[in-house]
Amino acid sequence: MKEVQETAEKIRTMEIRGAGRIAKAAAEVIRDYAAGLEAASIEEFAAGITEVSNYLISTRPTAVSLPNAVKLSSRYSSDNVENARKEVINNANLFIERADKALGRIGKIGAGRVQDGDVIMTHCNSHAALSIITTAFEDGKNISVIATESRPRRQGLLTVRRLNGFGIPTTLIVDSAVRYYMKDVDKVIVGADAIAANGALVNKIGTSQLALAAHEARKSFMVAAETFKFSPSTILGIPIEIEERSTDEVVDPSVLAELPHVQVKNPAFDFTPSEYIDMIVTDIGIIPPAMAYIVIKEHLGWEFEEI
Amino acid sequence: MKEVQETAEKIRTMEIRGAGRIAKAAAEVIRDYAAGLEAASIEEFAAGITEVSNYLISTRPTAVSLPNAVKLSSRYSSDNVENARKEVINNANLFIERADKALGRIGKIGAGRVQDGDVIMTHCNSHAALSIITTAFEDGKNISVIATESRPRRQGLLTVRRLNGFGIPTTLIVDSAVRYYMKDVDKVIVGADAIAANGALVNKIGTSQLALAAHEARKSFMVAAETFKFSPSTILGIPIEIEERSTDEVVDPSVLAELPHVQVKNPAFDFTPSEYIDMIVTDIGIIPPAMAYIVIKEHLGWEFEEI
Amino acid sequence: MKEVQETAEKIRTMEIRGAGRIAKAAAEVIRDYAAGLEAASIEEFAAGITEVSNYLISTRPTAVSLPNAVKLSSRYSSDNVENARKEVINNANLFIERADKALGRIGKIGAGRVQDGDVIMTHCNSHAALSIITTAFEDGKNISVIATESRPRRQGLLTVRRLNGFGIPTTLIVDSAVRYYMKDVDKVIVGADAIAANGALVNKIGTSQLALAAHEARKSFMVAAETFKFSPSTILGIPIEIEERSTDEVVDPSVLAELPHVQVKNPAFDFTPSEYIDMIVTDIGIIPPAMAYIVIKEHLGWEFEEI
Amino acid sequence: MKEVQETAEKIRTMEIRGAGRIAKAAAEVIRDYAAGLEAASIEEFAAGITEVSNYLISTRPTAVSLPNAVKLSSRYSSDNVENARKEVINNANLFIERADKALGRIGKIGAGRVQDGDVIMTHCNSHAALSIITTAFEDGKNISVIATESRPRRQGLLTVRRLNGFGIPTTLIVDSAVRYYMKDVDKVIVGADAIAANGALVNKIGTSQLALAAHEARKSFMVAAETFKFSPSTILGIPIEIEERSTDEVVDPSVLAELPHVQVKNPAFDFTPSEYIDMIVTDIGIIPPAMAYIVIKEHLGWEFEEI
Amino acid sequence: MKEVQETAEKIRTMEIRGAGRIAKAAAEVIRDYAAGLEAASIEEFAAGITEVSNYLISTRPTAVSLPNAVKLSSRYSSDNVENARKEVINNANLFIERADKALGRIGKIGAGRVQDGDVIMTHCNSHAALSIITTAFEDGKNISVIATESRPRRQGLLTVRRLNGFGIPTTLIVDSAVRYYMKDVDKVIVGADAIAANGALVNKIGTSQLALAAHEARKSFMVAAETFKFSPSTILGIPIEIEERSTDEVVDPSVLAELPHVQVKNPAFDFTPSEYIDMIVTDIGIIPPAMAYIVIKEHLGWEFEEI
Amino acid sequence: MKEVQETAEKIRTMEIRGAGRIAKAAAEVIRDYAAGLEAASIEEFAAGITEVSNYLISTRPTAVSLPNAVKLSSRYSSDNVENARKEVINNANLFIERADKALGRIGKIGAGRVQDGDVIMTHCNSHAALSIITTAFEDGKNISVIATESRPRRQGLLTVRRLNGFGIPTTLIVDSAVRYYMKDVDKVIVGADAIAANGALVNKIGTSQLALAAHEARKSFMVAAETFKFSPSTILGIPIEIEERSTDEVVDPSVLAELPHVQVKNPAFDFTPSEYIDMIVTDIGIIPPAMAYIVIKEHLGWEFEEI
Repeated sequence: MKEVQETAEKIRTMEIRGAGRIAKAAAEVIRDYAAGLEAASIEEFAAGITEVSNYLISTRPTAVSLPNAVKLSSRYSSDNVENARKEVINNANLFIERADKALGRIGKIGAGRVQDGDVIMTHCNSHAALSIITTAFEDGKNISVIATESRPRRQGLLTVRRLNGFGIPTTLIVDSAVRYYMKDVDKVIVGADAIAANGALVNKIGTSQLALAAHEARKSFMVAAETFKFSPSTILGIPIEIEERSTDEVVDPSVLAELPHVQVKNPAFDFTPSEYIDMIVTDIGIIPPAMAYIVIKEHLGWEFEEI
Repeated sequence: MKEVQETAEKIRTMEIRGAGRIAKAAAEVIRDYAAGLEAASIEEFAAGITEVSNYLISTRPTAVSLPNAVKLSSRYSSDNVENARKEVINNANLFIERADKALGRIGKIGAGRVQDGDVIMTHCNSHAALSIITTAFEDGKNISVIATESRPRRQGLLTVRRLNGFGIPTTLIVDSAVRYYMKDVDKVIVGADAIAANGALVNKIGTSQLALAAHEARKSFMVAAETFKFSPSTILGIPIEIEERSTDEVVDPSVLAELPHVQVKNPAFDFTPSEYIDMIVTDIGIIPPAMAYIVIKEHLGWEFEEI
Repeated sequence: MKEVQETAEKIRTMEIRGAGRIAKAAAEVIRDYAAGLEAASIEEFAAGITEVSNYLISTRPTAVSLPNAVKLSSRYSSDNVENARKEVINNANLFIERADKALGRIGKIGAGRVQDGDVIMTHCNSHAALSIITTAFEDGKNISVIATESRPRRQGLLTVRRLNGFGIPTTLIVDSAVRYYMKDVDKVIVGADAIAANGALVNKIGTSQLALAAHEARKSFMVAAETFKFSPSTILGIPIEIEERSTDEVVDPSVLAELPHVQVKNPAFDFTPSEYIDMIVTDIGIIPPAMAYIVIKEHLGWEFEEI
Repeated sequence: MKEVQETAEKIRTMEIRGAGRIAKAAAEVIRDYAAGLEAASIEEFAAGITEVSNYLISTRPTAVSLPNAVKLSSRYSSDNVENARKEVINNANLFIERADKALGRIGKIGAGRVQDGDVIMTHCNSHAALSIITTAFEDGKNISVIATESRPRRQGLLTVRRLNGFGIPTTLIVDSAVRYYMKDVDKVIVGADAIAANGALVNKIGTSQLALAAHEARKSFMVAAETFKFSPSTILGIPIEIEERSTDEVVDPSVLAELPHVQVKNPAFDFTPSEYIDMIVTDIGIIPPAMAYIVIKEHLGWEFEEI
Repeated sequence: MKEVQETAEKIRTMEIRGAGRIAKAAAEVIRDYAAGLEAASIEEFAAGITEVSNYLISTRPTAVSLPNAVKLSSRYSSDNVENARKEVINNANLFIERADKALGRIGKIGAGRVQDGDVIMTHCNSHAALSIITTAFEDGKNISVIATESRPRRQGLLTVRRLNGFGIPTTLIVDSAVRYYMKDVDKVIVGADAIAANGALVNKIGTSQLALAAHEARKSFMVAAETFKFSPSTILGIPIEIEERSTDEVVDPSVLAELPHVQVKNPAFDFTPSEYIDMIVTDIGIIPPAMAYIVIKEHLGWEFEEI
Repeated sequence: MKEVQETAEKIRTMEIRGAGRIAKAAAEVIRDYAAGLEAASIEEFAAGITEVSNYLISTRPTAVSLPNAVKLSSRYSSDNVENARKEVINNANLFIERADKALGRIGKIGAGRVQDGDVIMTHCNSHAALSIITTAFEDGKNISVIATESRPRRQGLLTVRRLNGFGIPTTLIVDSAVRYYMKDVDKVIVGADAIAANGALVNKIGTSQLALAAHEARKSFMVAAETFKFSPSTILGIPIEIEERSTDEVVDPSVLAELPHVQVKNPAFDFTPSEYIDMIVTDIGIIPPAMAYIVIKEHLGWEFEEI
């Protein structure tokens, strides 16, 4: 139980962060907890697993990958403690393996849609989106990238560094220039913080502007998202909350201090409606956004009653 | 002629900058030159005026207000030197007076369209747009403003300072948050660097994204533009060129130096198509963008043959 | 002056109502006043005409046809009293003649666009729109009409009666069925209460829903409007106000009395944006909505300075 | 069999009306019939159940909830009469329980999407839509409602009465004012008479105009629909028929009698295409409209072969 | 009068065909007729000119350039026969000169909008559109062209031959491939058979499909049209008629003879709505389509009363 | 094995062509091969089936029906050779039976959506689309058809011949006239070469122009497609390749020989995005395009891992 508490604490304090890392940490904890759980009956076993599951989920209620990892790892059907234990261990390992391979699979599948000569626009710094771009480049496709600065934290600088490392010709632009350059773009590829049951995308603030400009010019808009990014609770009408970040990221506090009538708003994410999304590249294949519900139900294993 | 050369030099070196200041300086120079021009015949007078006009225009061929000021100031119909001189002096003074009053008239006319309770989004730091906003506020309308940061030069900080000075409640956001906040907006009001004959707007990079997002949500999109911002030469198919600014505005040169595969693009302006513009508030009234041609022809006095 | 006061009073009390009748009454009053005006000098004449003009306009500040009629009738250029008097009488008579012929000309011009077999949808009870429909029918075109009920005052019943009088096959529907029947419609033809300088239409509440549904299905949307319906003051940003009518038109007061948390809103008109209007049929020809400014300037004689 | 006939008769004569009541009555009849069915073999049992099922469905072939209720209630897999009987009784009770809870679940799930301060527009008088609105209000959200009159039968008066009972601030408008007020609306919530397999909505005439106006202004459009409202037969291309109601609802017969060239059309419902629907709130969660096929197949239990 | 009759006959029999050639022939005839017209009074002169004008126009009532040429050539203001004669001769010569220069001016003005590297799609075989393309190429711009086959008469083969003569890289495609290749296109440039007063374009069947596909992908759509292509009569609601050509152009008569239930429809032109047209390049500059009315009124000299 | 090789050769050489015939031939070969396969163990049996399956698929890697037929026919679950053999024979026969009935089922299901009086536009010569049209006509619905010529191979002539044989009134038009006649159309019905996992349609070049014009005018766009036309590999990002056909189909080689700067492009198919498709009529019912993934998964039996 100590390992459980330590990991839970790291998730709570954001020492462990990022949807993938959180998910894997949770799966490992459940696996190890199940392995060591002393239970006289299947009821006792169930009680232990449920307690740990709920505890883990409670550490960061808004992290969409956390309940998915817990749910997929803690499943068992046997009413024999030892068999149930093996099932949980097995399921947790399976989840971890799938999560480990997810970026690679997304890269491979998505790269199939990239064509020689494509100009690709991307936003912020998404590992999944970059996996597609770099895989396509390594497959020998002659592509180039337009990367946005991604204010306020300017993660675009991380992106251009990474692409430079691969030798991919890259152009950095300010976020206001997205529509100006969209005419030169063939595809937009972005990552995901979460996918709602109705196929809407939650991602870095500004993503929906790329989507809108791509839609206006009929350019393809691809989202790269591991299946554990799909949000089961949205089926029940529980909205995904948009984190409001520190105003210091936008403007120096001393400036604001002088301006009593001025406030700063700094939302971390925005919503992109499904009608602006052409396809979602996941580790189980390419789906149209309307299939998000099926992913949640069939690949994440949620039944309505449990949500 | 010395005054002419000095002013021309100041325009060329951008010591005199801004569409309004350039226009007025040119009108003053023509007026003073006409006042002192020694001419034995109307032909000599005409030759002098033409020479100075062409010389002034050549100093900054892309400044849209310059040929408009020169054209309107240097008109005369008399074939008597003294009368022609008086006409030029009179026309130049008239132009200067109109230019001086333009911001005030735009503010007054545009404020009529602002309603109590309106949330107004603006971009960059346009004097004409701010004239409308502050006039509406001073008329007692209870409004608030959402101002964009306007990377790379962050003129949004100038805007929030100015609005703060009036006591207008203002929210500063990054450029990527435009679409996210558009749902809360009633009107978008921006300025203009130039208006093409087909009603298209040239303005600060990012303007067309505000227009697109406003159009998507069916919010009103107003442009505030003095008549001398309308571009006669676009009637002849001469496109308005987009200035490319220094990459240093976007990223520190030392960063780029390390990244051989990365370049920065930093266009100063973008184009907003007329279909996203609901109205243009000018010093001679509110017009739909399709009327730009009429403004050029009737209010700026250009005939096709002269352009 | 007695006639002036009587007519002014009738306009104020809405004994004289309807854009056309108000306009003609005002023109007649100005004509008769000018005919009898005793003036020792042109200045005195001018003072008299101006006083009466302003007085008339003040009786119903929101009636768009009133200032147009006054403006066009009271024009003169002579500085001789008798000649000026003749000019005013002549201009007033000209205006009245034009107004008298307007419905007929609109009917004739608009009917040219109606094709044999057309199904036409109309809203409320517009004389100008009906002039087009009945002219086309009398020209031998085999047409039929779908008329909306036009709650709350159900003017659709007047419309179907009138069309029945001509023997035109007509279908009455509730306002909610507009989109359902739009697939069967070839053209929508409606009248106008006012046309703004940017080509937007102010007309009976519900008009913009017909326009939106027609636009969605790419059906032609025609507005029938006499030139005196065009609003000069909108050039200056003075918005057209939407009259709020009695709630009794919508629901019996006794019902509302029992429902403390319920209110009724009953706006008489709505706005139709110019992008949903294919053409405006006026007494001086068919124009696209963007030409409204030209109508105001050239056919109604308004200069910016006077507005 | 007498109970069967009585209920069937009540459904046929519309003594039992409303999708929910019809569905539950049918489930009860099947349950009771199965409980008392004397059958020597499973074949005899099957024959009885099939006969009653077909008989019930035939009473109102266009009631979409009826075949769903019959189908879900009459299922069994055992080949032992007593076990099959128990299964049918159990399934019928399950269906009834689900139907009873449906409004509550829809209210709870949908209310999650309503935000504090929302202005909600609704049409006609849908129990499911009102369940969402009142639940959100009772959850402490400070909301207000705009309700349409819903001619011809003016069910909007029922709606405002009900909302008044909860103390929810409500504004009643005529149907023509929908687009005029859409700018003030945050969400549109309506009910459903039926949902087709392609996600299209059949609901009270005028619904598609709310949807169109919401789409134009990018406002959210939610449909509240119990799963038994989804129409299996549309998968096979059998269109949902639109009932034509009495013309007396629209205009007094005496009026029509005088107008030989005038007819009245009074369709009860219209179609809203799925592209204007953001989400459907059902008793099993929120789905995008494209998932209607899955609901029919998985939650209503229809296989293609049986339809 | 013999020359008049001969030319009139050639226009009627289509020995003289093409909007430009018809216009110039008519202007020449009026000029020569005026030069030789024996008239004792200005009334006699007027009668002669009017008679010839009407006679010429009657030879091909649907040729839009004919009334424009007649109108502009036959104008005079003097009430002295010799002066009036000179005016007519002068105006006719002016018209001919303008017509001669029109293609060159359109080419020069339009080429200003073509950018280095542009891929241009064109339809059918328009001299004005090709003037822009070849001028841009001769200006040193590195462009290429996609030309449609333009069934049924396959004028695309003429176009590719002409472009080949200039050495411009050209791709020929079938008409069905327009949308497929639109993604690779920067600009569409087509000619005009007529421009209506509301800015709509009448041109070779298929033009509106290029316009629609360009609009969908937000590619620029330019129309090249001499001012004499603008149709004054459309202001009065007189629709432009679409010629129905021989079915033999589409399919061999022997094929149709065997198929009693099959007919062929072969319209020569279609309508492109003004909202899909970005600009019209005329010999007097670039205008937005809404300015067509101004061209008719100011450059073609038509007043409403005369139409 | 000889039969396998012969059939494989016929598929490779396109002696057997057409999605349906290829699919059935493959199923027959697998059935017959399984029937005669000598296998000492289930492993040997599996090896044989796998080898033949892969061999068949390799003959035409781009034929979308081939892997579907092979996959569905070669399934078995038993680990006993004789039982597995029976399963394969049974599954192959089932597939053949389904394929045989597919056109009939599509015709029957789709005809349900055709209404009396409908004008239907179709493109090229699709058996599935014609099955719907002729079934509706034989059901007594009074319909007519507009058929496109379908350059370059003019399959429209086959279509009008076939419809003439049924006595269905048909109009033949050139491909450029699609948008011109769309206003008269009620429904567009086309076939499919392939359906991608995201619901996009691959069909005869020009199909996407019909879809775009139908979407613009809000006319219904139906695709008729057998389930074996759905492409499993698109889930993995493997794009469907567009065949480039001989340029001789478009223009005589002698013409091209003279024109060194001219090339011809002749793609056989184009892509229609799912947002322009209202429904897909398959042999298992009508689905919205977003359900393509479900068809692939549930009806074609593909699991992600196998693709």
